Amino acid sequence: MRKEFRDLAPPETVHETIASLDLAGETEHVPLRDAGGRVLAARLDAALDVPGFDRASVDGYAVQARDTFETDESDPTLLQKVGTVHAGTEPDVEIAAGECAAISTGAVLPAGADAVVMVERTTEESENGRVEIRTSVAPGDRVMFAGADVAAGERALGPGTRLTPREIGLLSALGIDEVPVVGRPRVGIVSTGDELVRPGEQLNSDAGQIYDVNSYTIASGVEEAGGSVVFYPHTGDDYDEMERILLEAAKECDLVLSSGSTSAGAVDVVYRVIEDRGELLVHGVAVKPGKPMLVGELGGAAYVGLPGYPVSALTIFRTFVAPAIRRAAGLPEPQTATVTGRMATRERYSEGRLRLVPVGLVESGPSETLQIDSNTGDESETVELQGETLVYPVDKGSGATTSLVEADGIVEMHPDTRSLTMGKRIDVSLFSPDVRPPTLFGVGEDDPALSRLLDHLERPRYLSLGSREGLRRLRNGVTDIAVVASGDPSQSALESRFETEFETVPLGSWEREWGLAVQAGNPDGIEGLSDLIERDLRFVNRSSHSSLRSTLTDAIAVLAAERDETRHECIDAIDGFEMAVRAHESPVRTVLAGTADAGLGLRVTANKLDMDFVSLGTEQVRVLANPDRTEKGDVATLQSTVSDVEALFDELPGYRRS
Amino acid sequence: MRKEFRDLAPPETVHETIASLDLAGETEHVPLRDAGGRVLAARLDAALDVPGFDRASVDGYAVQARDTFETDESDPTLLQKVGTVHAGTEPDVEIAAGECAAISTGAVLPAGADAVVMVERTTEESENGRVEIRTSVAPGDRVMFAGADVAAGERALGPGTRLTPREIGLLSALGIDEVPVVGRPRVGIVSTGDELVRPGEQLNSDAGQIYDVNSYTIASGVEEAGGSVVFYPHTGDDYDEMERILLEAAKECDLVLSSGSTSAGAVDVVYRVIEDRGELLVHGVAVKPGKPMLVGELGGAAYVGLPGYPVSALTIFRTFVAPAIRRAAGLPEPQTATVTGRMATRERYSEGRLRLVPVGLVESGPSETLQIDSNTGDESETVELQGETLVYPVDKGSGATTSLVEADGIVEMHPDTRSLTMGKRIDVSLFSPDVRPPTLFGVGEDDPALSRLLDHLERPRYLSLGSREGLRRLRNGVTDIAVVASGDPSQSALESRFETEFETVPLGSWEREWGLAVQAGNPDGIEGLSDLIERDLRFVNRSSHSSLRSTLTDAIAVLAAERDETRHECIDAIDGFEMAVRAHESPVRTVLAGTADAGLGLRVTANKLDMDFVSLGTEQVRVLANPDRTEKGDVATLQSTVSDVEALFDELPGYRRS
Repeated sequence: MRKEFRDLAPPETVHETIASLDLAGETEHVPLRDAGGRVLAARLDAALDVPGFDRASVDGYAVQARDTFETDESDPTLLQKVGTVHAGTEPDVEIAAGECAAISTGAVLPAGADAVVMVERTTEESENGRVEIRTSVAPGDRVMFAGADVAAGERALGPGTRLTPREIGLLSALGIDEVPVVGRPRVGIVSTGDELVRPGEQLNSDAGQIYDVNSYTIASGVEEAGGSVVFYPHTGDDYDEMERILLEAAKECDLVLSSGSTSAGAVDVVYRVIEDRGELLVHGVAVKPGKPMLVGELGGAAYVGLPGYPVSALTIFRTFVAPAIRRAAGLPEPQTATVTGRMATRERYSEGRLRLVPVGLVESGPSETLQIDSNTGDESETVELQGETLVYPVDKGSGATTSLVEADGIVEMHPDTRSLTMGKRIDVSLFSPDVRPPTLFGVGEDDPALSRLLDHLERPRYLSLGSREGLRRLRNGVTDIAVVASGDPSQSALESRFETEFETVPLGSWEREWGLAVQAGNPDGIEGLSDLIERDLRFVNRSSHSSLRSTLTDAIAVLAAERDETRHECIDAIDGFEMAVRAHESPVRTVLAGTADAGLGLRVTANKLDMDFVSLGTEQVRVLANPDRTEKGDVATLQSTVSDVEALFDELPGYRRS
Repeated sequence: MRKEFRDLAPPETVHETIASLDLAGETEHVPLRDAGGRVLAARLDAALDVPGFDRASVDGYAVQARDTFETDESDPTLLQKVGTVHAGTEPDVEIAAGECAAISTGAVLPAGADAVVMVERTTEESENGRVEIRTSVAPGDRVMFAGADVAAGERALGPGTRLTPREIGLLSALGIDEVPVVGRPRVGIVSTGDELVRPGEQLNSDAGQIYDVNSYTIASGVEEAGGSVVFYPHTGDDYDEMERILLEAAKECDLVLSSGSTSAGAVDVVYRVIEDRGELLVHGVAVKPGKPMLVGELGGAAYVGLPGYPVSALTIFRTFVAPAIRRAAGLPEPQTATVTGRMATRERYSEGRLRLVPVGLVESGPSETLQIDSNTGDESETVELQGETLVYPVDKGSGATTSLVEADGIVEMHPDTRSLTMGKRIDVSLFSPDVRPPTLFGVGEDDPALSRLLDHLERPRYLSLGSREGLRRLRNGVTDIAVVASGDPSQSALESRFETEFETVPLGSWEREWGLAVQAGNPDGIEGLSDLIERDLRFVNRSSHSSLRSTLTDAIAVLAAERDETRHECIDAIDGFEMAVRAHESPVRTVLAGTADAGLGLRVTANKLDMDFVSLGTEQVRVLANPDRTEKGDVATLQSTVSDVEALFDELPGYRRS
């Protein structure tokens, strides 16, 4: 079904091929007012002198310097004041020997005068219009002569200059109100795939529709790299339609990007159009992900086809396309686009082609160490991290959009690299120069109180992967915190098992009420778990990583003992015990949608969705920190916020202090 | 005349006062399409499951997993194909035991199926519609279940999140097409001063008009800091007019900045309006420059009055105002807004208030060292710079706009700091996060060939301050190159004097023809210097830092000897010898304007302005490098470009290889 790529181009070839294409936009002439951040397309020489006249640098009196030559505090000179010159007016006086004129800063030096005495060294005798001068000045003193700042004909700014406020200032001084700037490359984005729906439009999930992720993601990347974006309508896999749209985009743009579909049909149609109507220069690249990448030309425009999975599309865009757009836009690679860190885990690889590994970043604690394999043998050595950033791989090709926000950037693993050892220092190309490492990284239970607490932190990253995964990652030294929940308020079996193995620092805890969410008014009259076992009711569970599922299973075990049945018998009797959904609201929403009669969930969720709730108990939620990270700013902030968690309980029914 | 500021507020108080004012804009709701770079104003939780359906992760066959449990390559299973499901369509089949359906990546898993077998492990028997399955799969294999990526109710992004491409991607996946973002603070810019003219408009230099530099400079800084700008008309020093405009700006904006005038009158009027109609919180700050800074409130808006000189205005804006705008916009201080370097010179200070020193940056050479005073006594020690950035003070309060582009940022000297010693490591706050140190820094002669050569460099900084200053700065170890010119092609007296003292590396040289520019057709029939001495002609000279002036003086000395006169007598006989203008085009332009009959200049300039030219000789222009800097990229680039300087001579009449 899918086209096979036999001769994969090496990544260097792809870089060279894209570099050989002309992505440059046309020089634009923009108002100075809007020129900030743009790049000058040509040298600008001064067309006038700045200042355009001999200008007083201080408030004082315009004089002929030779009148003051013998003057000092003890032997002042008296000059006759013949007028006043204000800034912005043409002098109506001329200064002869023995005369002076009051002058303000910035005013035109009147004819005859060749210096200014600052007002502090003078006294004006109001009765007779004479001015006492108490200092000598040389010709030119306190005067900025015409052209002294910038002279006509001087080189002002060169081509390629990035226009920051100071350059805007110089151009203002020269009276330039329109500047030639390097044009933004116009980038057309054609999103392919019948199943894609633009955000904001109505989605038909039953028909397998999903929102188009790549178009806006890549558009945002294009704009960051200095390009301007034109969107073209979604296209399916009809050849004529695809041809029409690609040709239109190629005519209007400097670069056309197709992106969006994981369906082989659409990709094949794009491929055929480029081959028929343009030139296909690269078809398949020896890189993971991104093997099916296309590079070509179409109607004078460059063309690049990106892979369909969002993280893959952004990875290929960041690695191969964004640098080319930047070059065409005359912009430097941002200094903040790359960071250095150390691998927090070991990553193996053996496919013999370049691998672009999406990675997440986490800041290490101030005195944290890492136990790494030594270079020389089997013994391990201890490295002091000294606050270095830790780097860990994310997204094993799952295609998940959540991987997008879990990943901060890309590490390149070269084809002959078999593994990245733990502790190895590596460069990370960030997905955006604005990406900064999270200030707190946690994994654990999905909880509404936690979600609110996280709002107080600067840049938290939290993955709702359950208590077990939270503790596993905390033990591995990657995360700052784990959030675990258990139905047994004294101690969770799970947690105690882990706690025998590694130390954690409790930051705080709270309790939440759990049970069954049912339709408003409880039409089935459900009173407890026995109803699920005995009656023909459809139940919906949480997925296996959730603490609520374990807590439920424990509760069923207790009930089974009371009923003198096995736990297994009870579970088998519940219709839908295996119908597991992921987030804390999901089962409750399933009931709300009418697909089930009872859903495992929290009182707070049932309340929020105006449903009834059958209480079955409480869970204790605990926030545990990595001992190496307790000094990190946002870990400390979370600790102090957790200690004040009651403040949230007003809007969280079923919550209480533990 | 000027208001005196008696109780100067300490800078910390100014920071606190500005921080206490509310600059926050209103939350905006922007299309996702335009949300890149903005900051989320509220937490966004997922309102739907992603994917919204159980989704095939590969191309293959949807099956009931239990049908495959005993299957392997040697013992395949045959299933009956009952249909096909494409991505983006609703399945029209249901899978029973023993059945399967072809399914493409991204398509909806049909009812009855619970796993997908990838196509590579199957063979479809076209004749009978049966499919051979050669691997076993477990329930859920190759299926991404509804909500597995993002589940409804999950925390998606928190308040304060900067929206980079990956966040745009997540929001796209959630179908969100409008996001609440932190509003950009609205900043009104009121430029004061009768003498100011907006760039692009006609300037009347005779009336002392100058272009308004601060409005656009500060506007660009406001936008960089995340604010939006509203300009208010230029105002003079009429109280009623100023009051009307300030009140209008205060009503429409979160912050009002007044800026632009150095005239005391306008500043006093602003001061009175704020005091009468609002509240003046700070009037005068113990900081240099920026003493007359004002901070206040007016009609619910914050108000800050900036000093008039462009470098001072930008310095005060950068130090006190930009951080407050960033905070209000929810943006972090950019990582690139500060760099660390070492003082290249010693800077003394003793005014007892905070000094904000505008500084320039220059990259040191790879093996450059600096001789610095030791901490312990009088001996000096040698520091290896290891490529560190050197920092040197610029602009001694001259008010020049060129200082704007010579300065890269600001060093804070605290009131109790008496001096910054050479070699001291200091932090520099850059004027813009986009400012980067020049890739080459040169000082010397103003020359059109040089100007063109500089166009080939990345970020050159070149100051036309003449040969003497060029050599002086080269000797001081600050600049990378000096460009010197002299009428004596064998060796300049100036240069030889310096060269006995320090080593330079010649990068290349050329010759340029100099003489007198006269009106087209040479109406006065000027043939040489004797005409200037003997006849009643108005001459215009270059200023004293120019090589042409020295070259002219040398030529007059030769002529004087021939005429049996002293050089002084000849010079005295030239009307306008002291009328000196700065840049290489300036004297020629003066002749063109009719203010003089003959101007000192180059043939190339006379040609460019369609004037006649009386040749008097040639000057040799030499490019000399600091030996420590020859390995810097753009010094090397300049060297190779200079070696090819002939390529420019077609468009530079009077130029030739030396």
